[in-house]
Amino acid sequence: MQTPTRDSYKLLGAEELRLTVTNALVKAGATVSDAQVQANQLVDAELRGHASHGIRRVPVLCDRLHAGLIVSGASPDTTWVSESVLDVDGNLGFGPVSAHAAIDELLPRAASTGVALAAIRRSHHIGMLAPYVERMASAGFVSMVMTTSEGLVHPWGGAGALVGTNPIGIGVPSGDTPLILDMSTAAVSMGKILDYKAKGLEIPHGWAVDRNGRPTTDAAAASEGAISPFGGAKGYALGIAVEAIVGLLTRTAFGTEVTGTLDATQPTTKGDLFLVISTDVLRADESAQALARYFEQIRGSGVDSGVVSIPGDRARRTRTERLEAGVPVDGALWATIQAACQD
Amino acid sequence: MQTPTRDSYKLLGAEELRLTVTNALVKAGATVSDAQVQANQLVDAELRGHASHGIRRVPVLCDRLHAGLIVSGASPDTTWVSESVLDVDGNLGFGPVSAHAAIDELLPRAASTGVALAAIRRSHHIGMLAPYVERMASAGFVSMVMTTSEGLVHPWGGAGALVGTNPIGIGVPSGDTPLILDMSTAAVSMGKILDYKAKGLEIPHGWAVDRNGRPTTDAAAASEGAISPFGGAKGYALGIAVEAIVGLLTRTAFGTEVTGTLDATQPTTKGDLFLVISTDVLRADESAQALARYFEQIRGSGVDSGVVSIPGDRARRTRTERLEAGVPVDGALWATIQAACQD
Repeated sequence: MQTPTRDSYKLLGAEELRLTVTNALVKAGATVSDAQVQANQLVDAELRGHASHGIRRVPVLCDRLHAGLIVSGASPDTTWVSESVLDVDGNLGFGPVSAHAAIDELLPRAASTGVALAAIRRSHHIGMLAPYVERMASAGFVSMVMTTSEGLVHPWGGAGALVGTNPIGIGVPSGDTPLILDMSTAAVSMGKILDYKAKGLEIPHGWAVDRNGRPTTDAAAASEGAISPFGGAKGYALGIAVEAIVGLLTRTAFGTEVTGTLDATQPTTKGDLFLVISTDVLRADESAQALARYFEQIRGSGVDSGVVSIPGDRARRTRTERLEAGVPVDGALWATIQAACQD
Repeated sequence: MQTPTRDSYKLLGAEELRLTVTNALVKAGATVSDAQVQANQLVDAELRGHASHGIRRVPVLCDRLHAGLIVSGASPDTTWVSESVLDVDGNLGFGPVSAHAAIDELLPRAASTGVALAAIRRSHHIGMLAPYVERMASAGFVSMVMTTSEGLVHPWGGAGALVGTNPIGIGVPSGDTPLILDMSTAAVSMGKILDYKAKGLEIPHGWAVDRNGRPTTDAAAASEGAISPFGGAKGYALGIAVEAIVGLLTRTAFGTEVTGTLDATQPTTKGDLFLVISTDVLRADESAQALARYFEQIRGSGVDSGVVSIPGDRARRTRTERLEAGVPVDGALWATIQAACQD
């Protein structure tokens, strides 16, 4: 199943997306229950305006199911190796299935011990981190999620795609408008660089280096080189810290040995770390009210009455709009997914 | 006690620095034990090459002792509010005293429960984060430290110094050369902007905005405005996430209400969060060896045989050099600290 090229866009309802993606995954061998969880995660990314983590991932997921790399129906093995640490073997299942299974156990445990951590290995791509930290924020918990990914980023001062894009997710409860941070530690996605390459455009300074580690604005050279970390040396430091913490604690691969998120041929070797902190045990109620006032002060600080966002605000607005108006979906991609349902 | 202006530099041994700073703090009212812990923390920053967090902080600490804002000899109250969460009231004592007291309790607890968290309030400036995460890494633990600080950074797209420079410290054990990350979420320190202002130099683009939130290269305008976050919108997102998590869980102040780190007149209202994770409960031994090999690969990836560092490498090199050759100390500052000893 090939990823289609870009075509005309159509507006589709979230429920139609969910049903069609679920059907495509089931046709490719997923159980209905697993397919629903995975489809929900992909459509959630579309609703938030992050198509890069949306239904365009369906073809690779189907290919991985066909190749026997994703094993659907295999529940994750979860083991409390100590009072507050959950070790999770995903048994090669879907990422969102393992992730939600881990959260199901983490929340009640964190409510009791105050803080709980899950280390997940042998699980597939968990997609956007926002839905997970939002789920935990809605339940009143502070959370942090970190995950490794294929080596695409160069070390600061170095050559070679040796560091993952290693995203960080953070959720902080604050009424109906929690802080929901979800960001990669790379300056830009490889998808965007490939878009520029396809259009014959130069990329901006600071996005990438060529295969020799030299800064380049040539998208083709960049695609054979490496993406730059966001924010220079500090972003690099953060990205490699995520790689080290996640790889070490989940006992998964590092750097170029991370596979299975973008390809349809290699086993999944990345790891995911979920940290949950109770706000109740620290009796943070009053502080939560002060935080909400602080967020309002920040939102009102815009230059020339411009919009200032707390992380998560923009995705919430986009979701509200798209639940009303529908999700813009690439026509060719949609045709491919629909065809997969009828295979 | 005024912060002195810059003068000639002299090279002094770490032990002489420790003794003299300890004496100055004792003369200002600190107990010997507290003064030693605080002095050690300041000199450690000097050894790592971070004078901004070094002995230049002594005058403000002495002033705060004289003003009764720092209460020395008051041990922190530590309470396990749940199995894995330690609540710490610093009782207005020195920051490093509360921090090490928290770590003393966190390490054995994390060894047992797998993960433990301390929320510290009513404690003074803890200084560089590196010494704490290095201590925990040496003991075999992954750790993360976050702390709030005076509002000096503008929101992304906003005007006003509403967000702290909110540093993050991360330690990941790896033999003799652990990953030790210690970075602020601001593009640059206010101290550096004030240095440029004093010299009549323009600051680079991207460092700061003026009081109306407009980007500026005028150091004087920047000093009345706000520092920019590092790495644009992503660095802002990270900085405000730190502010939210730390403020909420430690029930301390947010934004402009954070005081007591830079001034000598206001109570300390910031918070510190210490998270410790056991590598043993997850049996990460084999993975630790893979991590060490990965770090070596990264260090060897330099363009044109340049040096690529794992976070912490440079500070370790500087410390080794300075333990040999001595620490360069500003002559006027040194005279001020020596004079304080004889008061």
